[in-house]
Amino acid sequence: MSATLAADAALEARRRAGQRVLAMTSGEIGLPVLPELRERLAAAAGENAYGPVAGSAALREAAAGYWSRRGLATDPGLVVAGPGSKALLYALLLAAGGDVVVPVPGWVSYAAQARLAGGQPLPVPILPGQGGVPDPARLRETVLAARAAGRDPRAVVVTVPDNPTGTVAPAATVRRLAAVARDLDLFVISDEIYGDLVHDPARPAVSPAVYAPERTVVTTGLTKNLAVGGWRTGVARLPDSPAGRELRDTLLSVASQIWSSPPAPVQSAAAYAFAEPPEITERIAASRRLHATVARAAAARFTGAGAHLAPVTATCYLYPDFEPLRARLAAAHGITDGAGLVRFLVERHGVGVLPASAFGEPDGALRVRAATSRLYGDTDERRTTALTSPDPLALPWIQEALDHLGAALADLTGPRP
Amino acid sequence: MSATLAADAALEARRRAGQRVLAMTSGEIGLPVLPELRERLAAAAGENAYGPVAGSAALREAAAGYWSRRGLATDPGLVVAGPGSKALLYALLLAAGGDVVVPVPGWVSYAAQARLAGGQPLPVPILPGQGGVPDPARLRETVLAARAAGRDPRAVVVTVPDNPTGTVAPAATVRRLAAVARDLDLFVISDEIYGDLVHDPARPAVSPAVYAPERTVVTTGLTKNLAVGGWRTGVARLPDSPAGRELRDTLLSVASQIWSSPPAPVQSAAAYAFAEPPEITERIAASRRLHATVARAAAARFTGAGAHLAPVTATCYLYPDFEPLRARLAAAHGITDGAGLVRFLVERHGVGVLPASAFGEPDGALRVRAATSRLYGDTDERRTTALTSPDPLALPWIQEALDHLGAALADLTGPRP
Repeated sequence: MSATLAADAALEARRRAGQRVLAMTSGEIGLPVLPELRERLAAAAGENAYGPVAGSAALREAAAGYWSRRGLATDPGLVVAGPGSKALLYALLLAAGGDVVVPVPGWVSYAAQARLAGGQPLPVPILPGQGGVPDPARLRETVLAARAAGRDPRAVVVTVPDNPTGTVAPAATVRRLAAVARDLDLFVISDEIYGDLVHDPARPAVSPAVYAPERTVVTTGLTKNLAVGGWRTGVARLPDSPAGRELRDTLLSVASQIWSSPPAPVQSAAAYAFAEPPEITERIAASRRLHATVARAAAARFTGAGAHLAPVTATCYLYPDFEPLRARLAAAHGITDGAGLVRFLVERHGVGVLPASAFGEPDGALRVRAATSRLYGDTDERRTTALTSPDPLALPWIQEALDHLGAALADLTGPRP
Repeated sequence: MSATLAADAALEARRRAGQRVLAMTSGEIGLPVLPELRERLAAAAGENAYGPVAGSAALREAAAGYWSRRGLATDPGLVVAGPGSKALLYALLLAAGGDVVVPVPGWVSYAAQARLAGGQPLPVPILPGQGGVPDPARLRETVLAARAAGRDPRAVVVTVPDNPTGTVAPAATVRRLAAVARDLDLFVISDEIYGDLVHDPARPAVSPAVYAPERTVVTTGLTKNLAVGGWRTGVARLPDSPAGRELRDTLLSVASQIWSSPPAPVQSAAAYAFAEPPEITERIAASRRLHATVARAAAARFTGAGAHLAPVTATCYLYPDFEPLRARLAAAHGITDGAGLVRFLVERHGVGVLPASAFGEPDGALRVRAATSRLYGDTDERRTTALTSPDPLALPWIQEALDHLGAALADLTGPRP
């Protein structure tokens, strides 16, 4: 967390000094709660019983319906809810045991969780532009080498769609990964928290559960599609196989000892949301359009400044690569690594982003992750306007934010006198 | 959990068959949410931001005030909130590392959590009638022997007041425990979730934080005193010392990787409750009186039937010992262990209790834990009546429950033809 915290502290100091800041560090979604969803939580405030460790029947059935509508027929008995998909991912790693293959770049918590669970993270790079899924060929090499060295890899984590790259691994790669996982007898733990934020809904991400249903665990939640990160909503879909049922039982035993059950009032609201009534579907569609529009506009600022960027097709994340500008950045600003790049942007321009090293890449990598999810307005009124606007880029505060980013990048990569 | 689950399944089968059941297995508090508290949660339904990993400033300040009013001056910067005190206890054991001394009998999750965190639970018996605090002399022997054998005990867990015995260890014992912990450089993790449920408020439980402030972590929540187990509210008070601050930092790092932050709307309601406005204080006092009255009446049924029972001075738990009746139980019913005792009560009478083995005691122990917390009524109206009644024992449904218990015990221990 230290990279995020350092960046946020620098931003906060600037903000307190009355200077302009552009918070692109955190992927927390800066949008208000849909009123109907808020009302469901309020109506459930009297629910004080623990209920089942796996979550209420209503929530498990709603989550099963959510997946079934996306082509993954789901038995509610194989759904486990938790206080956030992060908690479920940790408990899954603890339940699976052994070492864990993680994609690089990848969300930093996978590796940290693997260590806390007593295992070792085994980093495997992605294929270019195919974020979140370890290169299947390198996955095989890494697992075989680890086993030969006495390690015990039992699971591979994938992120579909991906944080930090904002890309979606193609079905062919996911299928190859699934085949390798089957061959090597690995669980696939597929973090699909961004599943509803593929920009073109006609081309959804393909889950490894399609190709390796007997060994793939899918996790998701309402944090990203409905902006309720602070509520802690998470659900896991366990594989319908003997190994999957055994993992479910171990997961429930771990959950019963760590968190007992997810918060009951939140479960009630989450059951409503996962059932996807029209107002929920519309809100998710509006958020997706807003992320797509602003993320692509921000991406254009980065590519316009000379950075390389794979086309952003999902989420609100960009992962621009300044490697083509290495010589210029060193000559003009003495920037030679990700930390230098981040420091320049925050100290000179109040633009907060995270270095690639926060995603498992080497310190020297000249890449950063920038999130657009907090650029939609600084009041609920502005955020709601952004959500419903046919042209969010025309809104003055979003225009200003993008111009702020553009000016910072021009200063970073433009010609120096 | 299997003992609880087995007992609950047997109860449920009986209930479905239309037979009478008396649910004394679970310590879940069967009381409705105080309306003012419910309203606070409802009003906070729009809060969707993660906020700090340690919990909101408002919650940490309120919790600090709660402890300060009980004689433990507390720096809000040393308070960490989590999704339940169970989750905090687990994260504390993970953060402290090493092996963990647990009291026997004791809450089964301590040992299970120690194992999940990669350590070994080291059981140490309590002194008679002084539940929750390992006998200080045996604590010393056990830790020295474990270290001599290459183990690495770093913490001792205590429960003050105690589950399962419903007793409160006296200050002198707590002081001796604190001295041994200091001598052996152990953290004391003091689970004080029942702190507000000492029957005589003029004689509160004494925390080990009084005697070993530099090494004692205190945890509590609103699960027991305000009956909101399903909300998942927990707070920890870390020691104000270099070791305490280091443990706090490690705890925050663990929390950030496992659960991010406690649910924001629940934090808001918990901040209100920990500030203890008059309606909260009154509700806690009413619950305490109800638990005390019914628990003592139930205790009288057990002692009346010939079981031994240390005076119940806190919580809603009884831990009767049928050892004096061993010969009679074997002769009359073939009962020779805790499981047999529990089976007799549930199968013949629909009375659900837990065997001592669920609290770390040997299978042969003829002790059970019985909780009165679900005897207060089967509707919110009856529960509210019980809470406000000057004489809850005169309410027909509570009288019936106690008579049901009395009849089952008479059949168990009474003379056979």
